[in-house]
Order: sequence, then C-alpha cells, then structure tokens
Amino acid sequence: MLNWKNLDTLAAWKNLLALKDKVKLPEVMAGAEGARRVAEYAVPMAAGLTYNYAAKAVDGDVLDALCALAKEAQLTEKYEALYSGEMINTGEKRLVLHQLTRGQLGKAVVVDGTDKRAFYTAQQEKAAAFAQKVHSGEICNAAGEKFTTVVQIGIGGSDLGPRAMYLALENWAKQEGLQKMEARFISNVDPDDAAGVLKGIDVAHSLFVLVSKSGTTLETLTNESFVKDALRKAGLDPARHMVAVTSQTSPLATSSDYLAAFFMDDFIGGRYSSTSCVGGAVLSLAFGPEVFQRFLDGAAAEDKLATEADPLKNAAMLDALIGVYERNVQGWPATAVLPYSQALSRFPAHLQQLDMESNGKSVNRFGEPVDYVTGPVIFGEPGTNGQHSFYQLLHQGTDIIPLQFVGFRQNQAGMDVEIQGSTSQQKLCANVAAQIMAFACGKQDANPNKNFAGGRPSSIIVGDRLTPEALGALLAHFENKVMFQGFLWNLNSFDQEGVQLGKVLAKKVLARETDGALKAYSDLLGI
Amino acid sequence: MLNWKNLDTLAAWKNLLALKDKVKLPEVMAGAEGARRVAEYAVPMAAGLTYNYAAKAVDGDVLDALCALAKEAQLTEKYEALYSGEMINTGEKRLVLHQLTRGQLGKAVVVDGTDKRAFYTAQQEKAAAFAQKVHSGEICNAAGEKFTTVVQIGIGGSDLGPRAMYLALENWAKQEGLQKMEARFISNVDPDDAAGVLKGIDVAHSLFVLVSKSGTTLETLTNESFVKDALRKAGLDPARHMVAVTSQTSPLATSSDYLAAFFMDDFIGGRYSSTSCVGGAVLSLAFGPEVFQRFLDGAAAEDKLATEADPLKNAAMLDALIGVYERNVQGWPATAVLPYSQALSRFPAHLQQLDMESNGKSVNRFGEPVDYVTGPVIFGEPGTNGQHSFYQLLHQGTDIIPLQFVGFRQNQAGMDVEIQGSTSQQKLCANVAAQIMAFACGKQDANPNKNFAGGRPSSIIVGDRLTPEALGALLAHFENKVMFQGFLWNLNSFDQEGVQLGKVLAKKVLARETDGALKAYSDLLGI
Repeated sequence: MLNWKNLDTLAAWKNLLALKDKVKLPEVMAGAEGARRVAEYAVPMAAGLTYNYAAKAVDGDVLDALCALAKEAQLTEKYEALYSGEMINTGEKRLVLHQLTRGQLGKAVVVDGTDKRAFYTAQQEKAAAFAQKVHSGEICNAAGEKFTTVVQIGIGGSDLGPRAMYLALENWAKQEGLQKMEARFISNVDPDDAAGVLKGIDVAHSLFVLVSKSGTTLETLTNESFVKDALRKAGLDPARHMVAVTSQTSPLATSSDYLAAFFMDDFIGGRYSSTSCVGGAVLSLAFGPEVFQRFLDGAAAEDKLATEADPLKNAAMLDALIGVYERNVQGWPATAVLPYSQALSRFPAHLQQLDMESNGKSVNRFGEPVDYVTGPVIFGEPGTNGQHSFYQLLHQGTDIIPLQFVGFRQNQAGMDVEIQGSTSQQKLCANVAAQIMAFACGKQDANPNKNFAGGRPSSIIVGDRLTPEALGALLAHFENKVMFQGFLWNLNSFDQEGVQLGKVLAKKVLARETDGALKAYSDLLGI
Repeated sequence: MLNWKNLDTLAAWKNLLALKDKVKLPEVMAGAEGARRVAEYAVPMAAGLTYNYAAKAVDGDVLDALCALAKEAQLTEKYEALYSGEMINTGEKRLVLHQLTRGQLGKAVVVDGTDKRAFYTAQQEKAAAFAQKVHSGEICNAAGEKFTTVVQIGIGGSDLGPRAMYLALENWAKQEGLQKMEARFISNVDPDDAAGVLKGIDVAHSLFVLVSKSGTTLETLTNESFVKDALRKAGLDPARHMVAVTSQTSPLATSSDYLAAFFMDDFIGGRYSSTSCVGGAVLSLAFGPEVFQRFLDGAAAEDKLATEADPLKNAAMLDALIGVYERNVQGWPATAVLPYSQALSRFPAHLQQLDMESNGKSVNRFGEPVDYVTGPVIFGEPGTNGQHSFYQLLHQGTDIIPLQFVGFRQNQAGMDVEIQGSTSQQKLCANVAAQIMAFACGKQDANPNKNFAGGRPSSIIVGDRLTPEALGALLAHFENKVMFQGFLWNLNSFDQEGVQLGKVLAKKVLARETDGALKAYSDLLGI
C-alpha cells in the first residue's frame, strides 16, 4: 500500500528541517575538499550525461536525511505505480503514461483492451510513415511539389516542448545533413503571431500540423482558421496542407479536413507530450523519424535510471530532493535554469511550464490545503547571455536563487574560431565553470560593491554534445524531477485546474455577459 | 540638498508597514466598487497609453502612504538631479544620461566642454545619414549591390533591448511598408549562435553592427572574428560589411576595420542604451531613421511625464511605489511581466535585465549593507501563451506573484479572422480582461482543486496599437520605474559589479591558472 502523506507529516522531514544552513559553500568548495566534491558528488545519467551537485549546499548529513525522506515518501514505489498504470492523476481521474511513449518500464498497461505502449508506438509509426512519404514526395502539394516547411499550430504543451526540442536540434541536424524540413510554430491567439509566421514562409510548400488533444482549444482553432484563410487566398486547398494531432474522441480525429490524424490520449498531459505524436509529428517531419527515435531512446534510458531506489544513483530523484530542501528548508522562492548552449534557448520556457504548471498548487492530491510552499518560480536564459543580464541579482541580490546549469563539451554546428588562444566553445565552457565557483565561493573585497558573499548553490548537467539522445535524457530528467517533487509535496502534478477560470471569464467577455469591473476592463480594452 | 537615506529609516516607510494586507482584492474589485476602481485608478501615459492599477492591492490609505513616501524619499528631486547631470552612479563615478538620448528635460549637461544632448543627437544623426545611404544604395557591397540584412553583434544591453525593440516593430513596419532591411542578432559566445545566424542569411548582402562600449567585450569580439572569418571565406572584405557602435576612447573607434563608427559614452549603461546608437544604428537600418525618431519621441514624452511630483499623475513613480509595497511590505519575491502582444515576445527578457541588473544589489549607494530585500525576480512570456503554461502557479501556487499586464486594442499586422462571433484580437483582449479579474477575485468552488482564492494583484498598461511611439513610452516607463525603485531602496541602480567575478575566473580557466574545484570543473567541461 502506498502512503500518500503530506511532506510535513513525515519523520524524515523533521530531521531535514534541523539541517537548515548546515553547509557553508565557500568553505566546503575551497581547496582539496572542493575538488573532492566535484569528483564524488556526481550521478551518471543516460546518453553520457552527468548530474554534478558538488556546488549544492549539501553534505553527508543532508544527503542521509534526503535519502531517508525518499524512502519514507516511497518515491520509487510511487513512480512504479505511475508507470504501471495506477490512477495517479486523482483530480481528473486519469492514468499518467507519458513514459510509455518512449519505453516499457514495467508490466503492460492495458486500458479497455488496448495495450497503451503499443498504441503510442503505433501512432509514432504512423507519423513516421507519413513523414517518410512527405520527404519522398509521395505526399506533396496539388502542384506535385515537395513540402519544404512544417508549421506546428498549438499552444502550451503543444507548442513549448516541441518548439524547444526543434530549436535544440536544428543546428545539429543541419550539421549532420539530417534536416528534412524547416519548422515554424504558431501559438498565440494574437493575430500578429500567425501573420508574422505566414509572412515568412511559402504556404504553397508548407504543411501545417494542428495539435489539440480536445480539438476545442480556442487559440489553436482560431489559428487554424487563420491559416486556412491564408491558404484559400493563395488558391490552395487547406485539406491538402494540414494534419491533426489529437485524441481519438476529438472532432478532428475523423475530419476530412486533414491529410492524416495522429492520436494521443488523456493519459498524456500537454506539458509531458513532447515524446508523443505532439512532438513526434513535427520532429519526424523536420528531422526524419530516425532522429525522433534517437530522442525517444535517450528519454527511455533516463526513465529507466529513475527507477533506481538509491537517490545517490538517481539524478532525477536527487535533483528533486535537493530542490525540496532548498524550497522548503532554506525557503528560497525561485530556481534559474541556465543552459550554456544557444540551442537550448527555449528549454527554460518549456521547463517553466513543466514545473510551474505541474507543482504550482496549494492543495494536496486529496484536495486538502498544504501548510508548506510548493513549486518555485522557474526562469532562465542561455549562458553566456544571462551573465550580461540578470546574473547581477543572482550574484549580489538579497534573495538566494538556486541555479541549474547545463553544459556541453562540444558545439553542435562544428564551426568555431580560435581567438587569444582559445576557441569559442572553450570560452563558453570556461564561463560556466567560473560561474559555478563564483556563485559558490564568492570573493571578499574591501570595496563592498565588489564583494561577493557566495553561498549561492548550483548543479550542472554536463554532456559531450547536444545530440537527440542527450536531449531526450535531459527532457526526461526534468519531467521525472518534477514528478518526484510532486510526490514529495503530495500534490497531483498532472492536472491544471488553475487555468480554467480565466477561460470561463473570457467567454463571458466575448458574449458581453459582464458587469462591474470585468465590464470596465472589457471597455478599456475596446472589446 | 538631497537626502540619500535607506528605505527603513524613513518615517513614511513605518506608516506603510502598518498597512500590510490592508486591501482585500476579492472585496474591493467586486460590483460597483470594482468598476469605480477601474475608472479611477488610472494614470495617462505618453502615446495614448494608460497605466491602470485598479487590481493592485491598494486603496486611499495605501496610496496616501505611498505619496508620503515618494515625497520623503525625494523621488522627483533625485530624478531631476539625475537628468541635470549629477553623479548618480556613485560606484563607477559616472553621470546617468540615457534620458538625454531622447530629449532635454532640464538644463544643458556639459561635460568637458561638450553638451551631452548635442553629442547624442549628433551620433544619432550620423547613424541616420549612414542608414539612408545604405537604403539608397550609395553604401553597398563590393559588387555594387544593396545590403538587405543587418546583423547586430552584441551581448547584454547591446543585444536584449535592441532585439526586443526590433521584434516589437517588425510586424508593424512590414504592415506600414516601412521595413527597409531584415535584422538578425548574434550574442552568445556559444559558436552555435553565430553559426545558426550565418546559415540563415546571405552574407554578401549583410551589414554587421558591432556593439561594444569598451571595445573589449569577450563575446562580441569573438563573434566579430567568427563573422569576419565567414566573410573572408565567402571572398568578401570584412571592412566593407561592418560598422561599430562604441565609445570614442575604445580601440574600435578609429579602426579602419569599419565602414563607420557611432559613439555612446560611459554615461549610458548598456541596459539603458536602446535609445542611443546601440539601438539607433540597427533600428534605423531596419526601419529607417524616421521610425527610430518616433520611438525616441515616445520615450521623451514619457520621461517628461515622469517629472510630475504627484505619484497619482506619474505612472512610472506609482508603479515603482506599488512595487516596493509589494516587495517589502507584502514580502512577494517575484514579478511577472505579461504582454498580450506577440510582438513583445522578448520584452520581458529585456525588462529582466533592466530590473534585475539595476536593483539586484545588497548594499546601498554608499556601500553599506541594507536590511531589506531589493529587486525581485522578473520573468514573463506573452499572453495568451503563458495562460497555457505557468499561469497555473500564478493562480493557485503557494506564493503570490504580482503581475504586470500590457495590452493593445488593435493588432499590428492588420490581418485577422472572425470565428464564433469574435476576431482573434477580441479574443486576445477578452483574455487579458478575464485574467485580471480571475487573479483579483478568484472563485469559490466546493471542489478545492477548482477553488481560486484570488487576491493576486496586477496592473495593466493599455494602448491602442503598438506603434514606435507606444514602444518608446513603454520602454521609458519601465526604465523610470526601475530608477525610482532604486531611489527608494537607496541603491546605485547604474553599476553592475556583480558580473565581474565570473569574468575574472573565466580568464583564469582559459589560462589554465586554476586548482581545486575550479580545476575540477574545468576538467569536467573538457577545457
């Protein structure tokens, strides 16, 4: 039997609370002990990645307490329950099966006679076959010409994840000669979004992927109409230019408006859908199904590592535990995600959704208010750009913000120059190493403006190169971290009721069924 | 004489502290009182914008206390001192003159015999004349062909602001027939950044604007070499393709490597430089000098409004005061910037730098530690996208995050579709109105998962359309807000010593002068 208990009712939690401010980073990261920590505080991940937490404010005592907490909170057992098909999403009464889109971790999960792993795989294969026909020219426009551009129309999880993944692999794919089609994304209901994208592409050679699980998402349907309008004005038949990614029960599933439809289901939340057809269709079209499969393989390998019960051998679990220590024991309100890789420019925006939408909750999985803080604010930009921007506050601001670095030893595009004795890639890597130490140890200076207190914790995930496998592992790491944190906080990380009220009120505004301040705001905005 | 005093030594501050949790938004925003607040709690801004703070947790008592605080902190007098040329940047012993790039607010500021307003204007005129010659073809490539693309090479303030401004006006300029050249941006030392941009442009028809005040910025010089390398490989002479924006004393100022050089100086901080030649060169090339001038005019008009001593008639000052109330009295750690305009997609990233780099400090302008929190974390994404992402935490998370909305009644591109009785633009505006009310008032629900406590404050800046003037006013508003907050916290908002230590350590890494943990990290990253 699983114990779904609030964090503050656990015995291990009380032990952890006593360890507030236990570790002084400027002390432990100095000299030989610092070097020892870098060597020892490391967990291997999939695809050759390593999670290094030497510069986190933990030591043997804190780690022991975190391991005890993991055990008492039954993190491994809860993960097993999740991937084995228990109803973990209690709010919406749904299973949580996104891991099955990339691998089979436990026993088969069969729902209404359907093996879900087989179902997800079949959809991916359908999308792969479709992509190959597009690439070969078998599926083409009315003039018999190949499609050169794929445009994803979706919002939230149907946009941020796939967009971040596309950008992450675009330079790599071009370098490897694997780019098949350019990809663009339309998300915002602001008509300037679709207008801007449409001005930059050749619609006659563009294929549009409409992504909406319910088939009723306001922004997505509106943008679909916008695009269809543009296609018709260009003398084209929209039905020859559109495919749908949706659920089998949605109105889009059987519509003749689409060349094809690929299916997801209610057991895959939008923010966890990059490895389903939601990411699969656009990424297979852009880079080919083989690249998408490599991405899935990286994620599957990382999912498997997350089944390890010992947190010291399980990067996602340890990252989650340290995050809870920082948030609930140390009281730090935000976490910055800082990839030293331009390819990961939108990865922080994806993690922002993944984390804040999953764990930005005030009631536990039984609907009872919790007496502790839950999900932090997540934000970030690529390094070294951020160094010239908000790092000032990270170094010398009055709040401590824990940091999550990501770095790679090699670049993607294979172009580099050597200046003043080092390459750009070396400069990039030197900066991330330097920042970690600057944050951890600071520097005493007689000029208080130039004084750095240090004590600002960070971890880093390091890899050789941002390949599809590494990207998949990176994505799964954070998905699993968020999942483990949800278990620790005893939340339902898989619903998002907090976004509903705004939708209801927006409908009222459009129907002119408002009074009081809502009417006043509607007038102010000229509606 | 100006009193530069810490916030917590002011009498008005103690009165304000007593007003914690004074206003219950779900109560005051309901019914007729809510409508009255929307009508009354509004401050006109430049370019037809309005700052509406009806949904902020303030009332007459709080506003009275804030007005008293503004007076005691001498906000108006300090602003006057700044634009009149006093040495406000005490750390670096510099004047702070970015407002002079767009207008003359007070007496002439003369330094070493040079009228600074005349100096900045002359540089803008030089850039304008250059841009016109490029547009006419008088300045062209070696083959006598026109340049079609401008690429800004800069980082931090030389990148984020100009990039955000370019993206903000791109759709507008295309619609108005005013787009002269496409613009791209290279910033990161990660070689994949430059490689990605270079793959997407035609270098033979590209003009590169190298921006570095000191002429020594590592990333920028490295990317310059990268680009020169690419130009040479394409058989082109780099000196025919590059201009510099720098200070007169920098090594770039007189180099024959550039077609032209436009100057800024030490009195304009990078994050305040969008209205100097740092933004002026690229924006004048992209859209023409007339458009850049309209942007300056909007900023100048807003600067003028910020001289108003009554905070209730001064949007930037009031925004600053309410922000300090939220940060220091209510104890809220972050602020989200939420523009309902896809054109402002990178505006939050610019404000993140502007705010966090200016006020992320722990010592006051005299170098003494302050006993209160200063600058918050700033983050944000455009709506409606954010609604499908991190808004879950904003609505139902355990921390309250104050919100800054921006919205426009009309779109930029002039393309729209009507679906289900409303246009995309109406849907966009309906959503922002709905969100403000959902955050403020929440909604009782027997299902605790669907219960919204409300009490989450927001303000909105509303305008007709995002024009160059409106953008200038918006930018100046936030610059001035940050300035006033710096005065309230008694900080020097115009230096950034917190970014120096990392640079020093990175140099050591590249020189292999490391030991201990820094060497261990360098090894880990393969340097």
